[in-house]
Amino acid sequence: MIVILKHGVDKEMRIPLIDWLQSQGLGVHISDGDYQTVLGLIGDTSHVDMDLIASLGIVDSVKRVSDPFKCCNRKFHPEDTVVQIGDVKIGGGNFAMIAGPCSVESEEQIVSVAKSVKAAGASLLRGGAFKPRTSPYDFQGLKASGIELLKIAREATGLPIVTEIMSIEHLPLFEDVDVIQVGARNMQNFDLLRHLGELRKPILLKRGLANTLKELLMSAEYIMAGGNEQVILCERGIRTFDDYTRNTLDLAAVPMLHELTHLPIIVDPSHATGRAPLVQPMALAAAACGADGLIIEVHNDPMHALCDGAQSLRPEQYAELAEKVRTVREVCAK
Amino acid sequence: MIVILKHGVDKEMRIPLIDWLQSQGLGVHISDGDYQTVLGLIGDTSHVDMDLIASLGIVDSVKRVSDPFKCCNRKFHPEDTVVQIGDVKIGGGNFAMIAGPCSVESEEQIVSVAKSVKAAGASLLRGGAFKPRTSPYDFQGLKASGIELLKIAREATGLPIVTEIMSIEHLPLFEDVDVIQVGARNMQNFDLLRHLGELRKPILLKRGLANTLKELLMSAEYIMAGGNEQVILCERGIRTFDDYTRNTLDLAAVPMLHELTHLPIIVDPSHATGRAPLVQPMALAAAACGADGLIIEVHNDPMHALCDGAQSLRPEQYAELAEKVRTVREVCAK
Amino acid sequence: MIVILKHGVDKEMRIPLIDWLQSQGLGVHISDGDYQTVLGLIGDTSHVDMDLIASLGIVDSVKRVSDPFKCCNRKFHPEDTVVQIGDVKIGGGNFAMIAGPCSVESEEQIVSVAKSVKAAGASLLRGGAFKPRTSPYDFQGLKASGIELLKIAREATGLPIVTEIMSIEHLPLFEDVDVIQVGARNMQNFDLLRHLGELRKPILLKRGLANTLKELLMSAEYIMAGGNEQVILCERGIRTFDDYTRNTLDLAAVPMLHELTHLPIIVDPSHATGRAPLVQPMALAAAACGADGLIIEVHNDPMHALCDGAQSLRPEQYAELAEKVRTVREVCAK
Amino acid sequence: MIVILKHGVDKEMRIPLIDWLQSQGLGVHISDGDYQTVLGLIGDTSHVDMDLIASLGIVDSVKRVSDPFKCCNRKFHPEDTVVQIGDVKIGGGNFAMIAGPCSVESEEQIVSVAKSVKAAGASLLRGGAFKPRTSPYDFQGLKASGIELLKIAREATGLPIVTEIMSIEHLPLFEDVDVIQVGARNMQNFDLLRHLGELRKPILLKRGLANTLKELLMSAEYIMAGGNEQVILCERGIRTFDDYTRNTLDLAAVPMLHELTHLPIIVDPSHATGRAPLVQPMALAAAACGADGLIIEVHNDPMHALCDGAQSLRPEQYAELAEKVRTVREVCAK
Repeated sequence: MIVILKHGVDKEMRIPLIDWLQSQGLGVHISDGDYQTVLGLIGDTSHVDMDLIASLGIVDSVKRVSDPFKCCNRKFHPEDTVVQIGDVKIGGGNFAMIAGPCSVESEEQIVSVAKSVKAAGASLLRGGAFKPRTSPYDFQGLKASGIELLKIAREATGLPIVTEIMSIEHLPLFEDVDVIQVGARNMQNFDLLRHLGELRKPILLKRGLANTLKELLMSAEYIMAGGNEQVILCERGIRTFDDYTRNTLDLAAVPMLHELTHLPIIVDPSHATGRAPLVQPMALAAAACGADGLIIEVHNDPMHALCDGAQSLRPEQYAELAEKVRTVREVCAK
Repeated sequence: MIVILKHGVDKEMRIPLIDWLQSQGLGVHISDGDYQTVLGLIGDTSHVDMDLIASLGIVDSVKRVSDPFKCCNRKFHPEDTVVQIGDVKIGGGNFAMIAGPCSVESEEQIVSVAKSVKAAGASLLRGGAFKPRTSPYDFQGLKASGIELLKIAREATGLPIVTEIMSIEHLPLFEDVDVIQVGARNMQNFDLLRHLGELRKPILLKRGLANTLKELLMSAEYIMAGGNEQVILCERGIRTFDDYTRNTLDLAAVPMLHELTHLPIIVDPSHATGRAPLVQPMALAAAACGADGLIIEVHNDPMHALCDGAQSLRPEQYAELAEKVRTVREVCAK
Repeated sequence: MIVILKHGVDKEMRIPLIDWLQSQGLGVHISDGDYQTVLGLIGDTSHVDMDLIASLGIVDSVKRVSDPFKCCNRKFHPEDTVVQIGDVKIGGGNFAMIAGPCSVESEEQIVSVAKSVKAAGASLLRGGAFKPRTSPYDFQGLKASGIELLKIAREATGLPIVTEIMSIEHLPLFEDVDVIQVGARNMQNFDLLRHLGELRKPILLKRGLANTLKELLMSAEYIMAGGNEQVILCERGIRTFDDYTRNTLDLAAVPMLHELTHLPIIVDPSHATGRAPLVQPMALAAAACGADGLIIEVHNDPMHALCDGAQSLRPEQYAELAEKVRTVREVCAK
Repeated sequence: MIVILKHGVDKEMRIPLIDWLQSQGLGVHISDGDYQTVLGLIGDTSHVDMDLIASLGIVDSVKRVSDPFKCCNRKFHPEDTVVQIGDVKIGGGNFAMIAGPCSVESEEQIVSVAKSVKAAGASLLRGGAFKPRTSPYDFQGLKASGIELLKIAREATGLPIVTEIMSIEHLPLFEDVDVIQVGARNMQNFDLLRHLGELRKPILLKRGLANTLKELLMSAEYIMAGGNEQVILCERGIRTFDDYTRNTLDLAAVPMLHELTHLPIIVDPSHATGRAPLVQPMALAAAACGADGLIIEVHNDPMHALCDGAQSLRPEQYAELAEKVRTVREVCAK
């Protein structure tokens, strides 16, 4: 860590800061320049509160030279992490196709969609049992029975299941779930992350609506610090001023994260855009820039089928998308 | 709710939608224009999924005419809510001064700060026991023993205490806390909100970093729908591209929320700006535009005192601020 | 246009508004609902000030049913516009590779880069002569002589040239430039746009840092309303809270714009990301989601070559990118 | 300027960079740490391209220790700049009340509003003659004749006039205008700024919709570098995800800018919020946090008067606001 002092701070004024830093067990290397003084901190600075130092009256700015994330940092773990779920692998050149309905609605619905997406090449089944909704008056999901229906669909198709957790009090219900999803709104629910770190089960961690890549990695770090190294990151769009699409899909996050971390990164074009006709182009773009997988909403409900809409695709649209994604991957992976 | 159909949608194409709407128990009033058709939905539309309808291929857009928030809506409850904590009132013309350190560090620290802020006119004591930190390696607070120290400070000064909850599993520890704070990162932790709705205790709900005013009100609604009507809203800065201040304090939210809701609204200029010299001007601005209170960080730790910095104020700076805020309120309240 | 009146506005109160609307030459169709009244405006509403009506005390909201953009609207011009520059075509299935250095620095530099990018398959040469810089103290480009050097490079290679205009007073210098670029900071310099509308020459219009797609289309409309229909839109990243990349490349804008307009849309992955290693993945992603071209920075200056960095690519990196883009397009165009 | 090299960069690899820096006339002070090397650049670094260096493969990051803005920097000019227009002063404790209609519409209108706002205590008259509009089909202002009408209103009331310029080709029309306004969309129209720097006339520079405070200061620097030191900065709201108000008024910019620059800073609560009921509270807040003036829209047109709406205030509302602002200033200035 480097601390740059303000211009005009003399040797007297900096003594208390240097004393305090040394009392924290750090070596301090002082470099006096013509214009400013730079303090180089030597030792383990991971516990040093950067904001506190930055806020001191005599400090111009503070720079962390080493990254605050360790477990997920590619520098310390150059090989790609491969997350394995049954026979399915994600990362390290393995591409995962996760698909299914927004919400689990009935046995008939989930089994039928599961069969369709399996036929189209999906390797995992998604479906919401607990639904985070902005309004307390909106449908909140089938909850425990939704998870039971997912298991039935798994039995019928062999597809491992992915579903979202909203609270640690539901953890026992997720014991037999293959991949636990943390939604965007819970990306910084640190207590939940800590509990998931105690499991030995893959976690699909979605980026928060207004969270930086560093914050996403620090949240992965909460899980990994507990010993659970099976984390899959997911870019699903961030909140901006833009209004045509629901969120702004930040695809550059994919190659950027691949540089910073060894964890697999998948993309959710359905929630990012909120518009079915944009799902295929953005899925192809995600594959082209190196994503390790896609999570896509597929429905088979007659209301949607009739009117041809929603952010969800029909099974036949998904099959076409899956086919194109395969070809793009073949080309780009070379 | 009004559904505007796309230009060119004929009477045949709209039948399935109209049938489906009627099957949801709604009346549908059709108004055919030269250019477009507008469907007016009659009945209780609060459970209708607006996004789903908007996503249909034949629909141009959907507008909710009535607000989705009920309990906190000023239209249905024109008088200001006054939240009462012991002798302290917030809202309806009552202004609350909440102050204290960022984190509870020791008995000596918290009791000493509590005495200082009380002398300066604070009516409630704040202090973090559970600290939400971006990094799992940063100090996470004194937790249960931090709450015990707050109670000691309360006994020493008579000031009611405000402290943040991070997980429902800690609820028993908050039984004797006067005001439970929900931090920005948990504003959409719906499960936590629902549990707080079951309490009969004031909740201080901070706006999320990237949440709209409507989403803030919907989160208040989660608490109020459970029967807990003592909700205090708090504007604490939103995340933007701007980089000089930590966040962008959205003060226009104060009069805007006063128009939309009867709940009291307080402002946190310390976290919003992250810079001590900006705290007083923004506190005065908040008072001038009608806020119902201020929550401000005050410290007495020698490290900061020596170097004169941080987002926290020294007790004497807080005393000056409190005095000026009183005068501004007298002028603006007229 | 649809005007939704506030709940509780009676027939008396709405008379002045209806009278005023009729005085503007509009028919007004009144639809009284149980809960609210909707006014449907009949006639040409393109000149009606939506903000003014929305701001009236009796109005809940206003919705434009028809788009405010006409010339560039795909509804009124379903076929793709193909912009032609010499033998080069952009749009309607024709893909343009624009490449060159950030700034024109010398004859040797620009001719050498031009030859390199031509060999790699570029169809147009870019290079900055007038440089918009945040600081008045930074290098502002070679100006008029930069344009002369571009013409020399054009003669040496046959590549048409693309360069940015910053002020109408320089218009005469651009007479022999093939494509005039409008930079992000001038996207709403309406006076400049109007002057460019009087030309009969292709305009490359970059999206502003914080402009919506609708605003981009309205700026294209300024040019097209003057009779110049050869407009190429360019997505180059928007400003968000995100800090790892310079801007956030909004690739979903590509298919979204293709739905809204018939104009060609190209992507600038160099400025969007500001990091050379991200340029290739984002270029492939742009090609995969349907962009009509790419504008990419390529340099050959020894300083950069030595150190392997910058947002610019070396010629050999560009050649590799160009080859991969061709393959992705072949796959996705099917 | 400080250049921090990446971990693992050895002495060989850094030679080309150091040579190049020295060839730019800079001294280079090398400080080798245990973990990283820091290069301190000595000499005038104002012309050094920070982005270029930051982008090099061996560089971790670059920090400017000195601010890039000089003329407007408070460090080099500690006393407040006072801009004087006739008898009116802005800055250094002098508060300016600028008021008038959005657009100049007719002689009767502008003279009548001018008289009203003068009676209410306004010291300068604003009114748009050239109007920047998102759509080419919207009313673009009365242009040259609008400026003539403003002069008539000035003669009738003695109020100096403020109006917006959109293009350098209109400069001759502004010769007799007292204060020339640069709108938010032209804040980085660098060519226009440079021309205004050649004048010796006050310039009112509005912050762009997505511009940082540093960028605002750099734009002021463009004007001041030409020798025109009479620049008034204006905060008018920035673009965020928030949707209840038109923009997000960033009031913390006021004290922050007062710390960074000696130029006066005024606030525009009308455009920032877009809602008349929010104008008074935000005007009071601006006065409370130290703004040097307010620019507010006041109308007297019967359409608005009838319906009581818009972002503009009626003259009597403005008079009430002006009175309250005076009192708040008396309290806060102490």
